[in-house]
Amino acid sequence: MRAVDLIRHKRDGGALDRAAIDFFIAGVTDGSLPDYQSAALLMAILLRGMSAEETTALTDAMVRSGVRVEYPGIDGIPVDKHSTGGVGDKTSLILAPLVAASGGHVPMMSGRGLGHTGGTLDKLEAIPGFRTGLSLSELRRALSTVGCALIGQTAEIAPADKKLYALRDVTGTVESIPLICASIMSKKIAEGIGGLVLDVKTGGGAFMKTLDDSRRLAESLVAIGEGSGVRTEALITDMGAPLGRMVGNSLEVVECLETLKGRGPRDLERLSVLLAARMLIVAGLERDEAAAEQRIRRALESGAGLEKFGAIVEFQGGDRRVIDQYDRLPSAPDRHDVKAPRDGSVSALRAEPIGRAAVGLGAGRGKLDDVIDPGVGIEVVADVGSPVRAGDAILRVHHRDGRGLSDALPLLAAAISIADEPPTSYPIVVERVSTAKRGNG
Amino acid sequence: MRAVDLIRHKRDGGALDRAAIDFFIAGVTDGSLPDYQSAALLMAILLRGMSAEETTALTDAMVRSGVRVEYPGIDGIPVDKHSTGGVGDKTSLILAPLVAASGGHVPMMSGRGLGHTGGTLDKLEAIPGFRTGLSLSELRRALSTVGCALIGQTAEIAPADKKLYALRDVTGTVESIPLICASIMSKKIAEGIGGLVLDVKTGGGAFMKTLDDSRRLAESLVAIGEGSGVRTEALITDMGAPLGRMVGNSLEVVECLETLKGRGPRDLERLSVLLAARMLIVAGLERDEAAAEQRIRRALESGAGLEKFGAIVEFQGGDRRVIDQYDRLPSAPDRHDVKAPRDGSVSALRAEPIGRAAVGLGAGRGKLDDVIDPGVGIEVVADVGSPVRAGDAILRVHHRDGRGLSDALPLLAAAISIADEPPTSYPIVVERVSTAKRGNG
Repeated sequence: MRAVDLIRHKRDGGALDRAAIDFFIAGVTDGSLPDYQSAALLMAILLRGMSAEETTALTDAMVRSGVRVEYPGIDGIPVDKHSTGGVGDKTSLILAPLVAASGGHVPMMSGRGLGHTGGTLDKLEAIPGFRTGLSLSELRRALSTVGCALIGQTAEIAPADKKLYALRDVTGTVESIPLICASIMSKKIAEGIGGLVLDVKTGGGAFMKTLDDSRRLAESLVAIGEGSGVRTEALITDMGAPLGRMVGNSLEVVECLETLKGRGPRDLERLSVLLAARMLIVAGLERDEAAAEQRIRRALESGAGLEKFGAIVEFQGGDRRVIDQYDRLPSAPDRHDVKAPRDGSVSALRAEPIGRAAVGLGAGRGKLDDVIDPGVGIEVVADVGSPVRAGDAILRVHHRDGRGLSDALPLLAAAISIADEPPTSYPIVVERVSTAKRGNG
Repeated sequence: MRAVDLIRHKRDGGALDRAAIDFFIAGVTDGSLPDYQSAALLMAILLRGMSAEETTALTDAMVRSGVRVEYPGIDGIPVDKHSTGGVGDKTSLILAPLVAASGGHVPMMSGRGLGHTGGTLDKLEAIPGFRTGLSLSELRRALSTVGCALIGQTAEIAPADKKLYALRDVTGTVESIPLICASIMSKKIAEGIGGLVLDVKTGGGAFMKTLDDSRRLAESLVAIGEGSGVRTEALITDMGAPLGRMVGNSLEVVECLETLKGRGPRDLERLSVLLAARMLIVAGLERDEAAAEQRIRRALESGAGLEKFGAIVEFQGGDRRVIDQYDRLPSAPDRHDVKAPRDGSVSALRAEPIGRAAVGLGAGRGKLDDVIDPGVGIEVVADVGSPVRAGDAILRVHHRDGRGLSDALPLLAAAISIADEPPTSYPIVVERVSTAKRGNG
């Protein structure tokens, strides 16, 4: 097999068979395929597409480029959640302890911030001492003792994806549904889970701006998961405005802790409970969504979820005292309020510019080697639907010595809309995608 | 400017402006643009296309990646011919001396064999001692003393094209009309010519198999040439069967010498005279095609063209005695005749399998580092239209100890068709493409 023939075949709109895809991914993994050939093939895939069979074969080859983790000491089906990325999207920190406190096992592997969106690892690392780089044996031990872990992708998990992702980033080949799906699902399948709930974001703050695109992505992800023996379903959820009221790493950890104490913002609590309930269902721990929700609410209201969060922090080397002493988390010293230009109702808080402003303040990375400032971020003082008077604070910027502030302010001003009447409110879960109706969601 | 933004813009169907194209080609030339980014962009260009403006800008940037040669000592407009490549296509060796003997100046830069087609440099190097690697100052001196030179692309000529071509070859991005045009025309424009005749091949033995594709290519090439101040026209010519009767390097040199002596095959002589006449016209030496043809025929019949060929060989270090002593050219010791399977007329001799068979015998390269055997090749004993009896030789293979013969024979058998009636004969020049009607061709 010659790489150039494979590239030409895809370029001309042909389908790649398993042998061709295995040849491609083996070459990426062992470095024998030059990057320029991978880049040409990735562009051809982006522009010509891939069938469901090709995408499944690509995912499978990427899984086989590393190990598929097993958890011999665990009684039950490990489950995970994956979000396609949003602004203020912090549910992982709430879900993992809630599901673990409800009898589930959650080997949650997450990523870092990407573009205007935040990353779970960056949030966790706001907690002093917290180690996201566990080994596979530490991960197994965490699952059998705590019931969950919140870690980064280990070197053993889908190494071909790691290489391809870096190449896609610099060759304009990120925005391809088959490549996105294979990247997401190969990592999840390799984690060794048997159930997966996908939170596919839609709207202005999501990578997929339209419901159609989000649905196509969700359907493709579900098909790959089911085809690989992982019980998979997706919730398509709204990412017009930031989720919750906090954007920024320390700020979001605090908001998660507040949510686990029953004092979180309604949208964040509602979505977290729903996702956690679906995780219990795909794990086979509940059949009925109402029962699953009730079980999650018990973990929330009893404090068992919060207790579990403390146990994770402790297992992963972090300072457990942050749970009650928020001042142990890094914070930014300075504040700047973005105010309502007139009387009315907040009719929109656009997630994307808010996310970009937060990155500029130091909450995310503009370049790969940028260092994150965990203390900075943006707080929503008046959320969508709130009545305001001219001069009332709508957003509060937590910054350090004005760093990034001058770039952030025009973004934030443009992120806000004020209308005479409050907007119609929409449900956070837009729809559910699964291969079969399960439970009664 | 970031390379990835440029790639994404072309990927999404946008047009690249001059600044973007200059950035791309400057990065290719100085090596600052990684090959994987070039490869992704090349694939996006192949699949999304380029407008005439983009193609002209790309050509221009590739010209400026090196020098544009000037010939201060020459009175007149230097002219050249370029063929898109065929089998037995040896007109360069005939045209250059005929045009030079008729008062033209021909700084002919050629290439090596590609795929199933032959290369002018490989043919010339069959002549003992012949140096195709002249320096630019040697080229200038050849033009002012002999009137022409037959050389390879020097390092100063369009270095970006050289790098891009190598990358296109291994990334499945050869077959793009804008990329093909920019590659051809950048080299020709950088040669410093003021007139150019293109021989765009069409049919089974050409890279462009259909007349539509050939016409699109011809029109694009002519537009770029005219846009760069080079008087350019194209003849679309038939490449169904090999041109002339010889395929293989020494064999083709002999056929060119025979043609310059007035004993060449009709198709080869006819096309050579036509192309040479058009070269006189684009050089401004004649306005009328009949007069131009007459002038070329005089150079042919007087022996001035042959004399000029001798002068080129001598200038470029070759053994001038080959002109009359063909046994000074390398030859292959062994012969094998491919015979007519039945009585009838030769109705087709397909150029592509014949070209591929010749490459396999050693007349061309299967891999870049293959060494050419100048003596081997294929001789057409009975050309298209000839009546044959079963067992008559149609093709004669000149081989060395059977090398490549077993692969060649089935290709050659498949290349031949015999019919009951002789085929309709078609003109060798299918049509002429130019921006304005000039002369009366």
